[in-house]
Amino acid sequence: MIDLSLDREIPVLDWGPHLSGRVKRMKSSAIRELLKLTQQPDIISFAGGLPAPELFPLREVEEACRYVIRTEGDRALQYGPTEGYLPLREWLATSMHKYGVPAVPDNVLVTNGSQQALDLIGKVFIDPGDFVITSRPTYLGAIQAWNAYGARYQTVDLDDDGMVVDQIEEAYERAVRESGRPPKFIYVLPNFHNPAGTTLSLERRQRLAEIATRLDLPIVEDDPYGALRYEGEDLPPVCTYVPERTIYLGTFSKTLTPGLRLGWIVCPEVLMKRFVLAKQGADLHTGTFAQFVANDICQRGFLKPHIQRLRRVYKERRDTMLEALAEFWPEGCSWTHPQGGLFLWARVPESIDTTEFFKRAVEEKVAYVPGVNFYPNGDGGFNAMRLNFSYSPPEKIVEGIRRLGVALKKELGMM
Amino acid sequence: MIDLSLDREIPVLDWGPHLSGRVKRMKSSAIRELLKLTQQPDIISFAGGLPAPELFPLREVEEACRYVIRTEGDRALQYGPTEGYLPLREWLATSMHKYGVPAVPDNVLVTNGSQQALDLIGKVFIDPGDFVITSRPTYLGAIQAWNAYGARYQTVDLDDDGMVVDQIEEAYERAVRESGRPPKFIYVLPNFHNPAGTTLSLERRQRLAEIATRLDLPIVEDDPYGALRYEGEDLPPVCTYVPERTIYLGTFSKTLTPGLRLGWIVCPEVLMKRFVLAKQGADLHTGTFAQFVANDICQRGFLKPHIQRLRRVYKERRDTMLEALAEFWPEGCSWTHPQGGLFLWARVPESIDTTEFFKRAVEEKVAYVPGVNFYPNGDGGFNAMRLNFSYSPPEKIVEGIRRLGVALKKELGMM
Repeated sequence: MIDLSLDREIPVLDWGPHLSGRVKRMKSSAIRELLKLTQQPDIISFAGGLPAPELFPLREVEEACRYVIRTEGDRALQYGPTEGYLPLREWLATSMHKYGVPAVPDNVLVTNGSQQALDLIGKVFIDPGDFVITSRPTYLGAIQAWNAYGARYQTVDLDDDGMVVDQIEEAYERAVRESGRPPKFIYVLPNFHNPAGTTLSLERRQRLAEIATRLDLPIVEDDPYGALRYEGEDLPPVCTYVPERTIYLGTFSKTLTPGLRLGWIVCPEVLMKRFVLAKQGADLHTGTFAQFVANDICQRGFLKPHIQRLRRVYKERRDTMLEALAEFWPEGCSWTHPQGGLFLWARVPESIDTTEFFKRAVEEKVAYVPGVNFYPNGDGGFNAMRLNFSYSPPEKIVEGIRRLGVALKKELGMM
Repeated sequence: MIDLSLDREIPVLDWGPHLSGRVKRMKSSAIRELLKLTQQPDIISFAGGLPAPELFPLREVEEACRYVIRTEGDRALQYGPTEGYLPLREWLATSMHKYGVPAVPDNVLVTNGSQQALDLIGKVFIDPGDFVITSRPTYLGAIQAWNAYGARYQTVDLDDDGMVVDQIEEAYERAVRESGRPPKFIYVLPNFHNPAGTTLSLERRQRLAEIATRLDLPIVEDDPYGALRYEGEDLPPVCTYVPERTIYLGTFSKTLTPGLRLGWIVCPEVLMKRFVLAKQGADLHTGTFAQFVANDICQRGFLKPHIQRLRRVYKERRDTMLEALAEFWPEGCSWTHPQGGLFLWARVPESIDTTEFFKRAVEEKVAYVPGVNFYPNGDGGFNAMRLNFSYSPPEKIVEGIRRLGVALKKELGMM
């Protein structure tokens, strides 16, 4: 007689021999373990990349839900096309026209946030051992997505003007030398870089387009924060110059809300067909209801004034953080001055390893992401950290930076 | 001067050399092209697997949206954990207890529909050339997901009692012979099989558990329709017998609505860690808002009476289709008698190839899915078709089956 009771003893299987070779490349990042420490309510966390929840447009989302359900509920709750909801794709395509990118709906695929776009790019482009060219540091979620496909990385430096694009040719040659084939694409975060907070200069954008064309390399342009500029002039995205070779990624996570889980890809139609096939196998399509709700909000013209409001609030938070850093941190530290986005990148004296230092910071009830996590080859960022300024209100920003200052001074023997 | 106007000529790149080897395995299925023909409004389509939109619980979803936004909007619209929303995972874990599966939230991962679960299984298990054991026919979306990872298939027959599990050992041996290693898992759809409509008998469920244990093979148990039973007794899922080696897949798409895009995996905790890592890279997490809304609806106890209603309506549609088949189809045809679910599987005389015949059916303004699409190795189903009975109201079902009968008779020279 088999015991099927709820308190029976269930054997534990060794799953190791059953798994794919791929899982060995999908290691739990140290960062995830670190971040668990930051869940305590008395910790001020600059670690996540969360938008400010008190700014979520609750009333507008509720109104859009009601309207969508009442007027087209049978379609909004049904299966939908893999490409996404056509009116939303139209709206997104049109939003590229101001940059001189003549996108039409057939150039747009709606994804589950831009993380899924990164995953689909991995699926469609990367064979094990292939190289990708990124800046050093670069966005950690991209590394995580592409590691699963066996990507390797050739990196170029990043300075106050963003990715040092003149090093790309050298990175290309190293890739060819080490793998016997060209790298798969150049990954760039032109606006308010995650984690560095820097913006790629206009000159470098044009130069990047030229270099990519000369080397016949695709460009993956990740632009989650472009709308969140707090000073200076908007710059055209790289896809303005080379739409034929750019895969542009956008998201509603930072402008509308992350919880709808909506991002999108804009790319040439011939390539779109590949992404659609990959997405079909991955999850059929992005949630219909979320797309209808976002579309309703966009079509009503609500997004623009809402983004104005976000800019005002986040600008104040950025300024607060910059002032607090100047006031509370010891000498020998430096940080970037982001013109927008959610993050800045701080460097502390080289004697401090920010991964080691993390525990001391948590003792002082404050958290950040250690810089090394953003180096695809783990070869830098040891004395750097990423600080988020969008999530915490100003008084918490001041207090958190003060606490970090105290921890740094203790570590340096100054207190 | 670069032309950045909207009507400029943009060159078309040859993306072929840039893509991964993987994309060659992701071919556009013929079925997708066929189904485009069925979009015309005067066509009665039995091709899709859509639930009846007129049964969507619009009022309850609207109420849940309002409640969730008003009471916890700041969390419902924020980023969430990769594993899913804890109260929903609790509810899903508890829903397994009636089967004697002692699941806890740590056994549950919320996915973007069960298609994403299939994709994550491919990512975590399948290396190129690995074999998977399936029935012949089997669910087409699973084949599509796993083809991208380079899966191959060893198939076993399917009869009125479902998968012929006694052929599994032989399939196992063929896999070992051809690939030099054991197959990766057994894929089974025990309840109201897609496309066949058959149900795996109790005896075979137990036997499958024994065989899997003896061969040390994982089982992927795909159960999208289990709640939609129209006659007979509920049977325990296979995971009841071997929870330690079963990956159980569920979904809200057929019971609540597809548009929220919510499915889930129940599996051993040691394995869950792998899925969580894979999902983190794939899209960070499933839409928070959709999870809060579904959770609210579940916790209020609405789902059970709603499913009762679906059962009544779909039972009537199944019966209508069975009666119409008996009335309108020529001799030499046969079909399954599904005890639940959305589909039945019909066979026509062998002289008819259902892929060829599709065009004639569309001329008669009716559509289905040709059977060969459900054969992973394309080696059968030539005179079979899948018919969906959940989407169309009874009068359309009668008319559609009549039209198919006319087309069949014409093809057979009987008219």
